[in-house]
Order: sequence, then C-alpha cells, then structure tokens
Amino acid sequence: MSMDLLLLSNSTMPQSDYLEWTADDILTFVGDHKKVLFIPFAGVTLSHQAYTDKVQGALPSLEIKGVDDFEEPSSAVQWAESIFVGGGNTFALLNKLHTSGYFDLIKNAIQAGKRYVGWSAGSNVATCSIRTSNDMPIVCPPSFEGFNFFPIQINPHYTEAVVENHGGESRLDRLREFVALNEEPVLCIPEGVGVWVQGASLELKGKYASKMLQKNGRLVEIKHNQSYQIGALQAM
Amino acid sequence: MSMDLLLLSNSTMPQSDYLEWTADDILTFVGDHKKVLFIPFAGVTLSHQAYTDKVQGALPSLEIKGVDDFEEPSSAVQWAESIFVGGGNTFALLNKLHTSGYFDLIKNAIQAGKRYVGWSAGSNVATCSIRTSNDMPIVCPPSFEGFNFFPIQINPHYTEAVVENHGGESRLDRLREFVALNEEPVLCIPEGVGVWVQGASLELKGKYASKMLQKNGRLVEIKHNQSYQIGALQAM
Repeated sequence: MSMDLLLLSNSTMPQSDYLEWTADDILTFVGDHKKVLFIPFAGVTLSHQAYTDKVQGALPSLEIKGVDDFEEPSSAVQWAESIFVGGGNTFALLNKLHTSGYFDLIKNAIQAGKRYVGWSAGSNVATCSIRTSNDMPIVCPPSFEGFNFFPIQINPHYTEAVVENHGGESRLDRLREFVALNEEPVLCIPEGVGVWVQGASLELKGKYASKMLQKNGRLVEIKHNQSYQIGALQAM
Repeated sequence: MSMDLLLLSNSTMPQSDYLEWTADDILTFVGDHKKVLFIPFAGVTLSHQAYTDKVQGALPSLEIKGVDDFEEPSSAVQWAESIFVGGGNTFALLNKLHTSGYFDLIKNAIQAGKRYVGWSAGSNVATCSIRTSNDMPIVCPPSFEGFNFFPIQINPHYTEAVVENHGGESRLDRLREFVALNEEPVLCIPEGVGVWVQGASLELKGKYASKMLQKNGRLVEIKHNQSYQIGALQAM
C-alpha cells in the first residue's frame, strides 16, 4: 500500500486567484493522472456544480468531474485517477462523505494508489481525525474520525496572529488543549504550505515555516524541502 | 417550569480581572441563592481545584464548591442553590458533563428552578446545541445537544474583526454556514454582554450591540435593556 497525497493548507492567498499559488504543485503531483473526481461537500453556501466549475477554472488542463456527474459514487471513484477534496466546513464535509457513501470508497481507492489532493477541510479529513479543524461544528458527523491516511493531525491555516483586545483563545491555546487530551502530534501548516506524502515519507513545501506541536506542548520547527519518515516525525 | 439563566459571552475583558466586568451582575442574579456548585470541565489545562479557586476568588461573597468537593454528582446538585458553568473548551465540557453523570442532573435542577450562570462554553451548552461554539473539536461528545433551555443558539465572543491577510472564514462566514444548514436563529453576543433569561423572556445587558442572525442570513440588531419574548425572537 503506497499512498500519494498532497495536502494544502488553503486555497487562496491574498491578492491571488483561487488555487493560483499552488496550481503548478497540483499539476506536478497528479502527473498524468488527470481524470479528477472533485468532492464539493465542504462548500455549504455554494452548489456542487458551482464549486466544481470553480476548481475546473483554476486547473484547466485537468479533466474535472463533480459528484453530480455520476449516477453512483462507486462509478465516480472507479472513473477517477485522482480525487480532490475542497475546503469549506469540515463537519459538513465529513458528514456528507458518510451519508453519501463516498467515505469508504475514497479511503480504499487512495490506499490502492489513486492520488489525493485536499485543501483546508480536505486536508483535515485526510488525517486521523477532524479534531484539529478550525471550523464551526454546524452539523454532527457520525464520528470525528478521518480517512486516517497517516497518524498525525493537521492544523491548516495555522497562524499565531490574534484579534487584538479579544478574549477568545488563540490558535495555539486551542491546539495546546488538543495535545493535553490526546496522543497525536499536530502538524501546524500556515497558509501557502503543502504537505507531500508518499508512502511512509512526508515533505513540506511552501513559503512559510511549519511547526509540529508535540504532546508535551513544545512547538518544533519542521524544515521544508526535506523528506521525513512519518514514524520519525510522530516520535520526535 | 420557570428557568432563571444568566449567560455571559466571556469571563475577562481587556485590562480587567477575571469576571470583574460582570461580578455585580452575577451577584444581583443569584440574590440569596449563594450556595454555588461550580462545573470546571471546560478548563482543559487547569485542574478542577485551581479553576474553582479562581472563580471563588472573583466572587468572594458566594460560597462556591467544586465537583471534587462531593462524593456524588447527585449530592453536589442537591446541595447547590445555583450552578455555574465556566468557559474553556465546549467539546471537553459537554463530553465530561455526559461521562460524569452531571448532564441530566443539572438539566433537571435548572428546570426545577435553581439558577444557572454560564460563560463562554458554559453559555453554549445552555442552548439547544453546541453547533455555534467557536472552539476546536478536541474530543467527540456523544452528541452536540445542549441543555436546550431555550430554542435559540448563542455565539459567544462574537466579533466582526478578522485577522488581516488570512484566508480562513470570518466568524460571520461560519455562522452563515450554520443557518444555511439549520433552522435555529443565532444570538450573536460580543464580549461584555450578558443574556438574562427568566422563564419565557430574555433580556440583553452590556456595553456592545448584540445581533440575531436569522435563517435567511439577515443580521438584525437586538436592543439591550429591553425584555423580549423568546418565541417572538425566534420568529423574528
């Protein structure tokens, strides 16, 4: 079982078009696996078709089909060489992956070698669980478990900035609460960063430094453009 | 069944001590129901005792006991004239309310007339559900249902400020996703605001304007120092 995943922190950088910052990465990653099934379920206030069209517009050299282009989830997943899961609300996404019957089909297809690209919510569901999502819990999914492609949590859109004079917890406060109650370390990826997973190894690429929050609450910088064994990162 | 609730947006205002902004309100609200059981379950990185001591320190004229001062949840709730539920992580709070056996006991006691004060997470769990919490879903509770003391959601720490040049959803984006998928309106309360509930009526007090986000996505200002029927607010 050799998995290929590209997990992006976000879709859009300031003053830049949708997926523009990472379009070349996505094309490199999928290579000639250009038949793409797009999963739009995280987009609560956007129709499936509108969301799928937006992604096709950002990546014109790929052949992108949406879930509504198929009669059955099984034929959609079978047709696809790559599966893209877009951002939005993580709870809505995970819930609909289950109610639609796509969850197990996608998990099996990726474990069997199809390529997976996720951004934001689509990166959260690729990990062991959605417990480090930044989103509002607007619907209750059957569980918080993700596809569990590897045993590290991701916090996308990671930032240490706070809204001034506001008493709510900072991002780091929230993540420290996570590690206080759980065993998994958290890979904190700022916007503009992608996590490239190939089998048991992982590499980060992007402009800004990423960090790993360990069980003991320590925050360790993870080097970009360097391959890590996932097991080593986990034990770090 | 006549319920008395005081639901606060937050514990601490900038440049002010813990609960200082609202201590007088809390004392007015509890009146001579001064035997207080404090529920510290939302405080993930603080011990039960340390959290209980902090609340006692902020409200020295009340007799505050914590959950660890009692052998049984039932004797704790029976002893109390008022129940205070502190802020922290809403998911951890709701989960522990269930696993500890406190959930039904508190719900019944408040419906039978004991007084309830909550802040932040403690306000979220008082409503129909925690689906408009701002917190990270660090643990998975058995369901998202709250005490359901009234059929309106609350968003505490409400703010329209955003972190500049950051692509994550704004608070209002997140809440609009909530109303797109759900029926309940959301009472959006900025820091420094308290919701006073007495039976079927509700009044807001505080420095900053509160808003109601309706099912259609419209945001309506709710007047402070004016009593509303909850049914009328819901249908507004």
